[in-house]
Amino acid sequence: MKVTVWNEYVHEQEHEHIKTVYPKGIHGAIADFLVKAGISVKTATLDMPEHGLTDDVLEETDVLIWWGHCAHEKVDDAIVAKVKDRVLRGMGLVVLHSGHHSKVFKSLMGTTCNLMWRDNDRERIWCIEPNHPIAKGVPLHFELENEEMYGERFDIPQPDEVIFLGWFSGGEVFRSGCTFKRGLGKIFYFQPGHETFPVYHNEIIQRIITNACLWAKPNVISEELGCPNPAPLEV
Amino acid sequence: MKVTVWNEYVHEQEHEHIKTVYPKGIHGAIADFLVKAGISVKTATLDMPEHGLTDDVLEETDVLIWWGHCAHEKVDDAIVAKVKDRVLRGMGLVVLHSGHHSKVFKSLMGTTCNLMWRDNDRERIWCIEPNHPIAKGVPLHFELENEEMYGERFDIPQPDEVIFLGWFSGGEVFRSGCTFKRGLGKIFYFQPGHETFPVYHNEIIQRIITNACLWAKPNVISEELGCPNPAPLEV
Amino acid sequence: MKVTVWNEYVHEQEHEHIKTVYPKGIHGAIADFLVKAGISVKTATLDMPEHGLTDDVLEETDVLIWWGHCAHEKVDDAIVAKVKDRVLRGMGLVVLHSGHHSKVFKSLMGTTCNLMWRDNDRERIWCIEPNHPIAKGVPLHFELENEEMYGERFDIPQPDEVIFLGWFSGGEVFRSGCTFKRGLGKIFYFQPGHETFPVYHNEIIQRIITNACLWAKPNVISEELGCPNPAPLEV
Amino acid sequence: MKVTVWNEYVHEQEHEHIKTVYPKGIHGAIADFLVKAGISVKTATLDMPEHGLTDDVLEETDVLIWWGHCAHEKVDDAIVAKVKDRVLRGMGLVVLHSGHHSKVFKSLMGTTCNLMWRDNDRERIWCIEPNHPIAKGVPLHFELENEEMYGERFDIPQPDEVIFLGWFSGGEVFRSGCTFKRGLGKIFYFQPGHETFPVYHNEIIQRIITNACLWAKPNVISEELGCPNPAPLEV
Repeated sequence: MKVTVWNEYVHEQEHEHIKTVYPKGIHGAIADFLVKAGISVKTATLDMPEHGLTDDVLEETDVLIWWGHCAHEKVDDAIVAKVKDRVLRGMGLVVLHSGHHSKVFKSLMGTTCNLMWRDNDRERIWCIEPNHPIAKGVPLHFELENEEMYGERFDIPQPDEVIFLGWFSGGEVFRSGCTFKRGLGKIFYFQPGHETFPVYHNEIIQRIITNACLWAKPNVISEELGCPNPAPLEV
Repeated sequence: MKVTVWNEYVHEQEHEHIKTVYPKGIHGAIADFLVKAGISVKTATLDMPEHGLTDDVLEETDVLIWWGHCAHEKVDDAIVAKVKDRVLRGMGLVVLHSGHHSKVFKSLMGTTCNLMWRDNDRERIWCIEPNHPIAKGVPLHFELENEEMYGERFDIPQPDEVIFLGWFSGGEVFRSGCTFKRGLGKIFYFQPGHETFPVYHNEIIQRIITNACLWAKPNVISEELGCPNPAPLEV
Repeated sequence: MKVTVWNEYVHEQEHEHIKTVYPKGIHGAIADFLVKAGISVKTATLDMPEHGLTDDVLEETDVLIWWGHCAHEKVDDAIVAKVKDRVLRGMGLVVLHSGHHSKVFKSLMGTTCNLMWRDNDRERIWCIEPNHPIAKGVPLHFELENEEMYGERFDIPQPDEVIFLGWFSGGEVFRSGCTFKRGLGKIFYFQPGHETFPVYHNEIIQRIITNACLWAKPNVISEELGCPNPAPLEV
Repeated sequence: MKVTVWNEYVHEQEHEHIKTVYPKGIHGAIADFLVKAGISVKTATLDMPEHGLTDDVLEETDVLIWWGHCAHEKVDDAIVAKVKDRVLRGMGLVVLHSGHHSKVFKSLMGTTCNLMWRDNDRERIWCIEPNHPIAKGVPLHFELENEEMYGERFDIPQPDEVIFLGWFSGGEVFRSGCTFKRGLGKIFYFQPGHETFPVYHNEIIQRIITNACLWAKPNVISEELGCPNPAPLEV
């Protein structure tokens, strides 16, 4: 299994207090716990040539993790098209937190992916599908003392599965962990992970993201997506 | 209820035998039976300024019907963006037959919407949700003696509802009638309607499309789709 | 449209403070607002012969509303079987609050329908499908100052649609308004409505229940549910 | 992973030509290919004490396979209740062919599970979710030269996923491979497998059933399904 962790990697370089939380970048923190779980991991960031998502890298990626926030518009449309194409051909995609507004995710969802938000709140996450592979080893509920509030209405298509529901102390709820199939690819959106909080150091969060990578791994990645014109069945 | 029927209106002008089937164009045929059902109808075609989908027309449209085939690429991206925006704000959308490859539908689905096809076959359509509003008055199954074969795998997201399944004599099956919610808008895709056959003169097909318009009518069409930043609930 | 409101009608007769909230019984309160909306309504209660759900009553019912709590086990299995059979043949069913543990609902769901609960809390209800017929005229969110907490994990099958999500001040979330199709019947489960609080006097709640009755009305109620053995299609 | 294969085992003992197809019984044929795949397998049949599904056997079963046809009514309700309870607590369940009318499956679905049928037909099975774990290694379509026709409308709740669609030469279609979650348990219904045809000797069918067992394996099997009454979250 080969996972590529993509991160825009801007906040961690611009803000000292965020760098303190993620000295190796959010991508580095995520790569670290995936490697510990025995997964082969590459990282890629916005400032690399082709954002680090060259054809070679993509063609070797079974599952792509995506974290972005302030620089969505700086991601090249040609790269977005390549990523989308590969998801539709079977690559798994794990979209984290503010990646809800990434070009890739919005293009795959077909909606605005808008939501309500508030800077700092307390979240309790409920697992409503304990036997889903993504929920393996995850408790019925757990708390994040500090997390940005993301609240409904989340403008997404009806998910294939809602695995986690988020409760916020300020009065909001959120479909915090959702799966979607698009083309041959499996997609998991997971809401926690604001850059100013050490969310990706939380062991339950790490377990969920690791599980999601294993779940999103494809049986096959198709060479092409075509419109065949077959002869009728012989009778 | 105000319905606008959009048709690229190319085949009917270029091919005499298709003109014979639809002398007023496919849009004209559809408008005729909707009007008989008491619905207020406008039509719009590719060759009109802004393809007939001006801001004024769109803002007065509750449900848009879309038929296109050979000229998808000629539809202006700016108009596509306006139509998509209005669907996400609540307008209903009924996509017919080869409209599966229209820019609007593909953009709302997020997938290729590819499928298998063969020029001429016989189809039997099965209704698997007899109490859905779109199936009102529709028999358990009915036949189309001549219809283009559209077969699986149809590269769409998992529909919210599959109402009709198609059987083709050549050995294929198809999810022929599917609903999707995208943003605040309700979408119905319906497979029958190849331009060379009198499918839209079939009374069962007419009933289904009429039902679909009534079903897709929104409660509300939102002014804008935003990302509010509310204060927490007072306690 | 003919609606029958069924209520076990025990709490209101046994507890003076509940009688004060619902002097005509919960069924009476619900019947009152449905009648105001122009719907033809009957009521039926546990202590009536056949619990008021005779063959004649059922055969004239398009949509049945069900409220029960402490007397689920006193409902006769033969009546449960008749109600279930009629739902599967097409009758709509609206299950309220503690009706989640009624024999009828559990039998239609196939699960325990267990949940978490706590006597008194404050609930905020979020509408996540504003263009669903059941949400017509309902605000994005509204509060119930006093409501019993019902929390996840709610042991139900994946709903066809989740229209409302509930937030409770004590830290829980709930899929508060869900639709299911079973057989030819449409089912809406709606969580609010603890007997000690005037929930059914709330105008938003009244609107939602009224909408649900209109939504659940069948196109057809089938005479029987059989296993036909048809000849093959002639070719 | 421990799989128990349950078979009513009546046809194979009563009819010589069926015994010829399945000399070790259908359960024996299924057990054989699962063992080859490295799975630990037990078998159980109707004529064993407690139908072979004693508490000890059930408590050691991760996934139960169910085949029944003519003897559904002879299955003891107490055993059905135990099997259902264990599915709701997390055990996987794979229901084959005429098991659609088994007490266990009908009770978990909440519907009649009726369908149309005809004795002998030719089936082509289409895979519409190639990246589902159950479809691993399965071609886009394959044929069964002889199979009983099972046709729509199949009276089941909307499946969580439809993985296979069946085409029959006589003009019918069928949702031939469907998943459902009920309680904590994962359920796969798979239509092929009439007792008079060597369907379970087909390598693609074997692969699908093997995949289904791996997919249905639970993360956890819960000790009990309760209704907790928790204190509110401390603030």
